[in-house]
Amino acid sequence: MLTRQQVTQTQARAAALLEAAGIMLTPDERVHLEVADFGLGDLDRTGLALVVYVNNDRYCAKELVLFPRQTCPQHRHPPVGDDPGKQETFRCRWGTVWLYVEGEPAQNIRAEPPEGGEAYYTVFHEVELHPGDQYTIPPNTWHWFQAGAGGAVVSEFSSPSRDAYDVWTDPRIRRIPEGTGDEAT
Amino acid sequence: MLTRQQVTQTQARAAALLEAAGIMLTPDERVHLEVADFGLGDLDRTGLALVVYVNNDRYCAKELVLFPRQTCPQHRHPPVGDDPGKQETFRCRWGTVWLYVEGEPAQNIRAEPPEGGEAYYTVFHEVELHPGDQYTIPPNTWHWFQAGAGGAVVSEFSSPSRDAYDVWTDPRIRRIPEGTGDEAT
Repeated sequence: MLTRQQVTQTQARAAALLEAAGIMLTPDERVHLEVADFGLGDLDRTGLALVVYVNNDRYCAKELVLFPRQTCPQHRHPPVGDDPGKQETFRCRWGTVWLYVEGEPAQNIRAEPPEGGEAYYTVFHEVELHPGDQYTIPPNTWHWFQAGAGGAVVSEFSSPSRDAYDVWTDPRIRRIPEGTGDEAT
Repeated sequence: MLTRQQVTQTQARAAALLEAAGIMLTPDERVHLEVADFGLGDLDRTGLALVVYVNNDRYCAKELVLFPRQTCPQHRHPPVGDDPGKQETFRCRWGTVWLYVEGEPAQNIRAEPPEGGEAYYTVFHEVELHPGDQYTIPPNTWHWFQAGAGGAVVSEFSSPSRDAYDVWTDPRIRRIPEGTGDEAT
């Protein structure tokens, strides 16, 4: 589990990166900036910070912040009831991000799966996104992504988020939001 | 109808404003940047420029650009079939925007309905948005908005857009996309 200090330091670092990308947050959003290490305790390599702008029963929008070479591990958004699964459009705002999805694998991928977790990365169709580039991930499709050497800011536009239903390749992963500010109140 | 020159000049001006706001477009998006004057032929006062990032059967995301004191006229998104009507979250990214929706009217509104069209502005509950501020407009709710003296950039996250069904208070309005680049091909 992340320490309170890790969370606040990471929140400040993420807010600074968003500001560099020209993205303004309210003071309340800064306090509630979410830090995820997916329960792996290796935040520098596996994790991300995010701001959820809106998540209602019709649509969702978030800002994702990845530090240099940080990875969001492989997962998919399965069907839930009438919902065919979350569909996501990633739009790179700042930096470089390599996105991997199902499909023809790249010969030499540019990202590097985090050491020790290699077995849990199985899709290698590579999509490189620079600012202004975007890609839509169909529902229930395995995907993972990693930032380039300078980190990345990615806007996510999607159908509603129901994180609890996400399926992760790595069985060690626990997706419990930390650092949303709620535990401090 | 807008002239080709008006469209290209407005596209360039909108792209410059987006760049000032730190928002990058691809060359293709710049060419397809949409300019709307709503058929009123008074673009400086009534109109907007927009980039549609994604509009599928589940969600929609756009960037809206308003020049100084430019107004998007009053309209609502009615129910269509099973859809209760488009729901929109406006997030101000740059500049100032005054949004007016149904509800308790402000005593003295800060925006000014465009001259000659005053009769078509009937909702005056005021929401002032600065960078980082956002507001969600329920489906089928009358609304209009105007930029402050420096213009504004607003991200719109929403359920799917079906512009053809929009209902406008001003019967003179025609909502035909112009300047999407398609007419030049």
